[in-house]
Amino acid sequence: MNPRFKQIAKLFQKLPGVGPRQAARFVIALMDRPEEELHELGMAIKNLKKEIGFCKTCFNISDLPAMPAHAGQTGNGTCTICHDQKRDKSKILVVEKVTDLDSIEKTGLYKGLYHVLGGAINPIDGYTPEKLKITELQYRIVTALKNSPELELIIATNPSTTGDTTSLYLRELFQNKKGVVLTRLARGLASGSNLEYADEITLKHALEYRK
Amino acid sequence: MNPRFKQIAKLFQKLPGVGPRQAARFVIALMDRPEEELHELGMAIKNLKKEIGFCKTCFNISDLPAMPAHAGQTGNGTCTICHDQKRDKSKILVVEKVTDLDSIEKTGLYKGLYHVLGGAINPIDGYTPEKLKITELQYRIVTALKNSPELELIIATNPSTTGDTTSLYLRELFQNKKGVVLTRLARGLASGSNLEYADEITLKHALEYRK
Amino acid sequence: MNPRFKQIAKLFQKLPGVGPRQAARFVIALMDRPEEELHELGMAIKNLKKEIGFCKTCFNISDLPAMPAHAGQTGNGTCTICHDQKRDKSKILVVEKVTDLDSIEKTGLYKGLYHVLGGAINPIDGYTPEKLKITELQYRIVTALKNSPELELIIATNPSTTGDTTSLYLRELFQNKKGVVLTRLARGLASGSNLEYADEITLKHALEYRK
Amino acid sequence: MNPRFKQIAKLFQKLPGVGPRQAARFVIALMDRPEEELHELGMAIKNLKKEIGFCKTCFNISDLPAMPAHAGQTGNGTCTICHDQKRDKSKILVVEKVTDLDSIEKTGLYKGLYHVLGGAINPIDGYTPEKLKITELQYRIVTALKNSPELELIIATNPSTTGDTTSLYLRELFQNKKGVVLTRLARGLASGSNLEYADEITLKHALEYRK
Repeated sequence: MNPRFKQIAKLFQKLPGVGPRQAARFVIALMDRPEEELHELGMAIKNLKKEIGFCKTCFNISDLPAMPAHAGQTGNGTCTICHDQKRDKSKILVVEKVTDLDSIEKTGLYKGLYHVLGGAINPIDGYTPEKLKITELQYRIVTALKNSPELELIIATNPSTTGDTTSLYLRELFQNKKGVVLTRLARGLASGSNLEYADEITLKHALEYRK
Repeated sequence: MNPRFKQIAKLFQKLPGVGPRQAARFVIALMDRPEEELHELGMAIKNLKKEIGFCKTCFNISDLPAMPAHAGQTGNGTCTICHDQKRDKSKILVVEKVTDLDSIEKTGLYKGLYHVLGGAINPIDGYTPEKLKITELQYRIVTALKNSPELELIIATNPSTTGDTTSLYLRELFQNKKGVVLTRLARGLASGSNLEYADEITLKHALEYRK
Repeated sequence: MNPRFKQIAKLFQKLPGVGPRQAARFVIALMDRPEEELHELGMAIKNLKKEIGFCKTCFNISDLPAMPAHAGQTGNGTCTICHDQKRDKSKILVVEKVTDLDSIEKTGLYKGLYHVLGGAINPIDGYTPEKLKITELQYRIVTALKNSPELELIIATNPSTTGDTTSLYLRELFQNKKGVVLTRLARGLASGSNLEYADEITLKHALEYRK
Repeated sequence: MNPRFKQIAKLFQKLPGVGPRQAARFVIALMDRPEEELHELGMAIKNLKKEIGFCKTCFNISDLPAMPAHAGQTGNGTCTICHDQKRDKSKILVVEKVTDLDSIEKTGLYKGLYHVLGGAINPIDGYTPEKLKITELQYRIVTALKNSPELELIIATNPSTTGDTTSLYLRELFQNKKGVVLTRLARGLASGSNLEYADEITLKHALEYRK
């Protein structure tokens, strides 16, 4: 393969889940695209951080606080969800990543607020609690309890080892906090699954969360 | 293929999930087995219903009530679970099939009793409520409430359309029954799954059953 | 679970690919079957070796040579394929198992004869060449060459390590035999597969067998 | 979601095989990258067509013919393979896409030349023969036959409907061309597969390509 081609393909491998083959396919596909499109995508990537940022309250994606043109839209770097007066402010659902928030938002079933931690506790990879937006969550909770007598904190970290560690950490931090009700997304049987083939851990959770 | 071979293979196709190919493989494999083994398996199948039966209380597998040699073991056609004095008699977990009971029993986490319906309500296939052991369940509940002020009925039908129909039917039947607490095995996120890729229905259940 | 139930289920685990769960399902399913069916299946298994045997020429399934009632049908313990005068006697396709023969026979594309080895060479599991029907194959070839100037021996052992070993062994045995043309089923790209994702070994074979 | 975020994510959906979710993940991941990296990737995409092109002979990826700085390297817009004097010029392997070429090149087993068609014949999607580099292939063959008495044309289009159509088209075009030997990559059993479970079409090809 051409050396410059390889270099460019390597840049694409930094995208999450993209290996050398998919990266090569991306470059080859882009070579068939019109010039304007390459220009548009290239400039969007180059200027990414000048155009979008994270919500200063919940760390969801938002417009940039400093951009005057966009400021009027959601107000001072707050995301559309935090800015929406109709959302139930007595509920905060805590997720690891923006894409998790997005999954739940797409169900249309949750009407409260969110908090994006920016990952899960995983000391081996350097994700200690200080790296996550946990202090910011503590601060939000203190503020929220001034306006609302009770606050449900729904822990929605992933059903994985690191998600469980994070969940336990948050439980210890907030379980004695007056006014905070801690819940966690249920684990159990998947829809369409079969009791007969369910593994032991799933059955254990299905029994525990039964109601 | 040899016609007698085909005939025999066809008999094996009546086993659940066994297609023509697997049936042929079974016969070919048996042809390599020693005579005694074929004799033993053949006789066990031929006499199956003379040797084992269903528990007259919960419809789990049991020894046959009429067999004097076995009767002493579990007592009058009752299965080992119903016969065990240490099981918690204030809980009945309702499953569709013996294999479902077996799955839960293998977790070692449930210490109550069971009730095997013998299937799920599915009118298209002729599985009307009368075909299932529901009258027997009603009778058991009435009897159980005489000895225990409260009885938890844990509905553990499959998380499928027919399992849901059966669950709804049982709820309507027992929800106003004094002393009966109805619960259902939780649905939710599978262990090791990822919030980001969870489907809408799973997230809906994970929110509903949260605690 | 009931001890006699467990014993019977264990007998079913001797069927190829049947684990404890499937075995239990088989027994439970049989308990719902009518008595006559259990009798029929049980007797067929018990008498299996009295009713069917292997072809004395190619080791395919056949009627038993000693059974007078069936003898007229295919003649002296020969299978229907060996007995069929329309088959091309200048081709012998060598397979590991009767089920492999059956797969090829179902395509309807092959009109020659077969030879079932009864396995593949695998010294670790005790499958040495003497355990397979290789001496019988040598004898057949000598006899066949008396009637036909040329004989194609199509090696159709599995594309696996043991299948490859067996193939090599047969090649060494017959490659200098005058009149014998050795071929092997092609390896290559699977229909509907994609060159881009094909592994190296598949591409190697696809190049080798190209024509 | 933020509208500008959505717009940018949409640009990524133009990459092959990237859906809305993966596109969103890409943008979120890029937001965590340092500015320099975004600048580098953005500029590489923006200037893609100024930096790399397609080989004027075989349509593999190459440096741009017009770029003086690179020209010395592979010579006038020819790719490294066409430029390599050690490659066997009496073989042309015809593939649909650059990524297919790359797969075969990675095996290290093929030492001839390539020809990238740029797709397969698929009239429904507008891929008529004229859209592919077939005229260019005809021209190459005429030229090649001047230097070499015989030329093997190895058709390596995909084992799919459109790949088969393209293969047939090329066969008709070149089968009476003196000096051209047409072959096609073999189809057959995949390594590690099992004869017993092979589908009919695979067995058909395995018989056809046997040797």
